[in-house]
Amino acid sequence: MQFIDGGVCAPQGFRAAGVYAGVKAAAGMTAAEAAKFSEEIRSGKRPAESKSDAALIAADGPCAAAGVFTSNLVKGAPIAVCQTNLQNGRAQAIFANSGNANTCNVDGQDKAWKMAQAAADALGIAADDVLVASTGVIGVPLPIGPLVAAAPALASKLSSHGSLDAATAIMTTDRVPKNLAVEFTVGGRTAHIGGISKGSGMIHPNMCTMLCFLTTDVAIAPSMLDRALRLAVRDSFNMLSVDEDMSTNDTCVILANGRAGNAEITAAGPEFDAFTEALSALCIQLARAMAKDGEGATKLLVCAVAGGKTDKDARTVAKAVICSSLVKTAIFGADANWGRVLCAIGYCGAQVDVHQVDVDFVSKGGRLAVCRNGAGIPFDEALGKQVLQEDEITVEVTLHDGSAAATAFGCDLTYDYVKINGDYRT
Amino acid sequence: MQFIDGGVCAPQGFRAAGVYAGVKAAAGMTAAEAAKFSEEIRSGKRPAESKSDAALIAADGPCAAAGVFTSNLVKGAPIAVCQTNLQNGRAQAIFANSGNANTCNVDGQDKAWKMAQAAADALGIAADDVLVASTGVIGVPLPIGPLVAAAPALASKLSSHGSLDAATAIMTTDRVPKNLAVEFTVGGRTAHIGGISKGSGMIHPNMCTMLCFLTTDVAIAPSMLDRALRLAVRDSFNMLSVDEDMSTNDTCVILANGRAGNAEITAAGPEFDAFTEALSALCIQLARAMAKDGEGATKLLVCAVAGGKTDKDARTVAKAVICSSLVKTAIFGADANWGRVLCAIGYCGAQVDVHQVDVDFVSKGGRLAVCRNGAGIPFDEALGKQVLQEDEITVEVTLHDGSAAATAFGCDLTYDYVKINGDYRT
Repeated sequence: MQFIDGGVCAPQGFRAAGVYAGVKAAAGMTAAEAAKFSEEIRSGKRPAESKSDAALIAADGPCAAAGVFTSNLVKGAPIAVCQTNLQNGRAQAIFANSGNANTCNVDGQDKAWKMAQAAADALGIAADDVLVASTGVIGVPLPIGPLVAAAPALASKLSSHGSLDAATAIMTTDRVPKNLAVEFTVGGRTAHIGGISKGSGMIHPNMCTMLCFLTTDVAIAPSMLDRALRLAVRDSFNMLSVDEDMSTNDTCVILANGRAGNAEITAAGPEFDAFTEALSALCIQLARAMAKDGEGATKLLVCAVAGGKTDKDARTVAKAVICSSLVKTAIFGADANWGRVLCAIGYCGAQVDVHQVDVDFVSKGGRLAVCRNGAGIPFDEALGKQVLQEDEITVEVTLHDGSAAATAFGCDLTYDYVKINGDYRT
Repeated sequence: MQFIDGGVCAPQGFRAAGVYAGVKAAAGMTAAEAAKFSEEIRSGKRPAESKSDAALIAADGPCAAAGVFTSNLVKGAPIAVCQTNLQNGRAQAIFANSGNANTCNVDGQDKAWKMAQAAADALGIAADDVLVASTGVIGVPLPIGPLVAAAPALASKLSSHGSLDAATAIMTTDRVPKNLAVEFTVGGRTAHIGGISKGSGMIHPNMCTMLCFLTTDVAIAPSMLDRALRLAVRDSFNMLSVDEDMSTNDTCVILANGRAGNAEITAAGPEFDAFTEALSALCIQLARAMAKDGEGATKLLVCAVAGGKTDKDARTVAKAVICSSLVKTAIFGADANWGRVLCAIGYCGAQVDVHQVDVDFVSKGGRLAVCRNGAGIPFDEALGKQVLQEDEITVEVTLHDGSAAATAFGCDLTYDYVKINGDYRT
């Protein structure tokens, strides 16, 4: 298995595109005003914003499809459309916008269905084969006009090199697009999985994270696709936190068109394992990229836990460490303040013998052992700075309670997180 | 019931003091070096730090005593001493230091007992009548020499006007001391409760918060004192969060010397209720003061929930709102971004019908209604700024699911929180 270019268009038979529809600019306009505004941008009468805000991913034919969604009781309106359209395990396109979450609005459902219909009309497919997603501010009515108007433009722009455009169009406070693909072998065939994702703040998924759109040319039955997706999400997006705020719109969907030509995967076995392994590897890389691009982040913070009593204990410890505001600020300040790691382990609710815990900080700068058997050991502050000034820091925690392991992905907490979120909406 | 001056010395028969022992400066010194260093500061040979770091509270005679402590599995060494010494429901003095938490050190227990013995020797009482507490950095060996040396100085400085000195000596990153007292009537007698507390970061107590020392001249049996303390803590410190990081050293203890002359409270009834009401009122004021002085905070953030299905649901919602990093940064930015409030309600795990939720922002600047039945309503952005620019903001949440209510206390998340915690240790 190797990482390759191409994102969601790396698998055969998928195309993607992104455009500036004008969702952000149009907020507060009537549908007619918004459509006119967007048309003026597209025709060049009005200078386009640098940032696109509408993305389309389309397969050349019907696909097996699966999705996992936020467990927040407050759910974005697009999620209901996805859940309905995934009931038959089939879909063919994904239409998404940034700039507005279409959540907590009285007319949200109606507009989410209008999005699906607009993409379906532009592509000449059925509306129930379209998945939709929205991300951005909550509680502001979605300007549907610009999105309906953008659908034909998106359809005509679809390209097998359009993944980066689509990844860029779903960004909100993200600084970099997340656009990845893997190539691997399954059932003797060369196959691919591609993915784009977005997410920078309000990231603490419990079923899935923010927006992630995956494509594959593997032939796989919808039920097995769903199972593989849940396994991959468990070890990737569900181990990711930027700020412990679980979004209302977390959506992770996958389309599989079977073009790789492998015998359809319909049960567990080596082919299913190969697919799940590749999918997990891709999702973990996307999760790492999202953590490193967390709002205001300067560093990727990884917590690798070993020696846990149970998988659940190891996961709980790993997430508690990367969620602790005090650990996150210490990492920002390159301060080897390991007592905060112990403190987080102590309050997280996992079954841990705190008198057996070992902690090391590890990076390209070296390894700093700071705690053995739950107590501090002398260390070289200069080495500490050297280790902690790198931009990817792993906190290695060994519990000595068993053999379970888990890894979680987060980021430091910085001035810029406060700045970004102190004036996001207005 | 009314608030009065005097703090822990407002009740008859209690004296307090604070001095600079040199715990922070002495970190890393041998005991002999540290004692010499501290002596030089006290004798004026070395300029004293402006900040004191050792506090003593003493009653003129034996007291009923009770305490509640952190539920973190990693516990500061002083907590074990308190728990042992509270087994007989009696104590007479409290000796505390800031600058070092005496936690995660191999010799912590031994040093915590040495603190108790030093205070006992200085006061001429038994070591098992002394409660001890430490707050500050975790995992650095406690310099016990300066504290042992400071005990006689503290004892000779004890004063019935010394509560503010003691409150100042237990501060770490706190900007203001928390020093309060109430006067009320119980069993026909005028009685008092005084309290000092500290806590600014790593505040998300689950049994109690950081350090809080309470005194009262009410006559009450230890078992009833314990019960009243738990009730008061439930509605005050357990509803407080600065950063969701539960400390290893949370300690709240109370001494009751009976000098008010009321018939000893030995069972539930009007006298117990009067005492608990006054104690709760005092603890809530201390919790509000701690939240407002949270690390880096510019605003007190209160969430008042009404209409909950159960008490637990109301409490869970209130705490989730004041804990949300996104709500906290929005309050810092004076941004009426109520969607983040809905989001937090949705993920907190409480039983809530999100389609019935109403949200208002309230302050001295006015009332801003932003959400009805789970959806946004138009509001005046100018009024929003006026309401949210005040330094005490209440988020009123009405769930319309029942009749339970709860109130939680937090603060905004600011640049200074990051600054303070990015370079706390080094």
